[in-house]
Amino acid sequence: MDIWLIGIGTGSPAHVTAEGMQALRDVSVVLVPEKGAGKDDLAALRRDILKASGTKAQVVAFDYPERDPALPYIERVARWHDEIARRWQSALTETDRSGPVGLLVWGDPSLYDSTLRIARRLSPAPRLRVVPGITAIQALTAAHVLTLNTLNGPVTITTGRRLRDHGWPQDAETLVVMLDGDCSFQMLPPDTCIWWGAFLGMPEQILAHGRIGDVAQQIIQMRAQARAQHGWIMDTYLLRRQITEP
Amino acid sequence: MDIWLIGIGTGSPAHVTAEGMQALRDVSVVLVPEKGAGKDDLAALRRDILKASGTKAQVVAFDYPERDPALPYIERVARWHDEIARRWQSALTETDRSGPVGLLVWGDPSLYDSTLRIARRLSPAPRLRVVPGITAIQALTAAHVLTLNTLNGPVTITTGRRLRDHGWPQDAETLVVMLDGDCSFQMLPPDTCIWWGAFLGMPEQILAHGRIGDVAQQIIQMRAQARAQHGWIMDTYLLRRQITEP
Ligand SMILES: C[S@@+](CC[C@H](N)C(=O)[O-])C[C@H]1O[C@@H](n2cnc3c(N)ncnc32)[C@H](O)[C@@H]1O
Ligand SMILES: C[S@@+](CC[C@H](N)C(=O)[O-])C[C@H]1O[C@@H](n2cnc3c(N)ncnc32)[C@H](O)[C@@H]1O
Repeated sequence: MDIWLIGIGTGSPAHVTAEGMQALRDVSVVLVPEKGAGKDDLAALRRDILKASGTKAQVVAFDYPERDPALPYIERVARWHDEIARRWQSALTETDRSGPVGLLVWGDPSLYDSTLRIARRLSPAPRLRVVPGITAIQALTAAHVLTLNTLNGPVTITTGRRLRDHGWPQDAETLVVMLDGDCSFQMLPPDTCIWWGAFLGMPEQILAHGRIGDVAQQIIQMRAQARAQHGWIMDTYLLRRQITEP
Repeated sequence: MDIWLIGIGTGSPAHVTAEGMQALRDVSVVLVPEKGAGKDDLAALRRDILKASGTKAQVVAFDYPERDPALPYIERVARWHDEIARRWQSALTETDRSGPVGLLVWGDPSLYDSTLRIARRLSPAPRLRVVPGITAIQALTAAHVLTLNTLNGPVTITTGRRLRDHGWPQDAETLVVMLDGDCSFQMLPPDTCIWWGAFLGMPEQILAHGRIGDVAQQIIQMRAQARAQHGWIMDTYLLRRQITEP
């Protein structure tokens, strides 16, 4: 079996590359999840992208399982991935297999995404192809007209949980935080500079920027309000210890 | 003046997004450099992309100045950027200014690229827009069918020079190295795992992967050979301290 992980960018159908569009036309089946945060918005975006590609692929849905809260974190995730792989396999029974199976992956398939880990669980092992897509990080820097790195400087990408548990990583100059449901930037020194964005690439996109001491409360409020309004939210931010050249 | 920095990906015309293609059609002028490493190959790629977009924009060339080797690094780069900004400004005199000016930026405009810093030097200050593009990092992970991060792990992006001067950054788990003309991975412990790629996204793409102890010499040879053959090379690699799940 051939499985193609096709990066679709982070909310704008215009993020999809020519390679991504062609890949959608070349697959014979597209596997799409039925559940998830922002279910309706994301399902509509996927439909738009599939339509824009002109693909004739058969669209097959699968349901995400629940995670078992009784298990320790690593094992909980591993069992969850096992179960998703099983559901893919059963959803794919009796589908058209003349061409590859495509999965639309949010952003880029390499970045904080488990689709590749799940695909590696299938047996027999599928042949895998990855089509890169615009990440939330790129959507953030583009929206703020910002460079990711300072002049030849290093960049660290991390999660909200790691920032909370381990603090500012040593040697980090520019820090990008993803997967943060708790506004972990609050704990940082007031002079830290933040470039924040939610719903990046989407019509609902919201941005904020400034010293943590000045804007943290404002971002927390904007985030809570937007989340209440849409029923879900995804946000990403970039931090520097102090304001430097942009 | 409106200046649009349009990310074009790292060598495949199919990396360009729908947004990028539309932006190329919406500008009235495209500014292209006349010189640079891999001059002919890159000029041909730019021509292909412009052609594929169907843009009617006027294409205006500018020459890169030389850097002054007598100056200390930071100042040398700053003066060089000043001079490029001046050349843009003079190249743009008497061009069609009914629409924005577009620049085709290799990869993503946010990542180790100075176009944004140069654009900020223009006066009066232009209105800037950034269109994200696929980076060499994404082309690398896609080619190797590799995740950038380990499960919820952090990622550090750095340059060859920094790796040489400062060693493995503390707290780094996955390390991506760009802008390395000297195969700086040689100095790492033999058990470090490397995923290496050159000419990513291009027909000339070459890949290698393994323990530094096993593959470093092979990569150094492949690189020298490919460089001699093409007259230039660009390579990027991802490192992990030891082999983990891919
Ligand atoms: C499971 S990760 C997937 C990342 C994705 N593969 C990428 O390349 O961006 C989800 C996280 O990505 C970030 N994210 C994804 N889409 C976003 C968007 N449209 N706006 C802001 N953040 C986004 C948020 O930090 C969110 O918690
Ligand atoms: C000046 S930086 C530009 C990076 C670009 N903005 C991006 O988003 O990838 C040039 C460095 O990018 C990497 N690079 C760019 N294109 C590449 C390619 N096609 N293959 C391998 N590495 C590439 C190399 O590390 C090179 O030294």
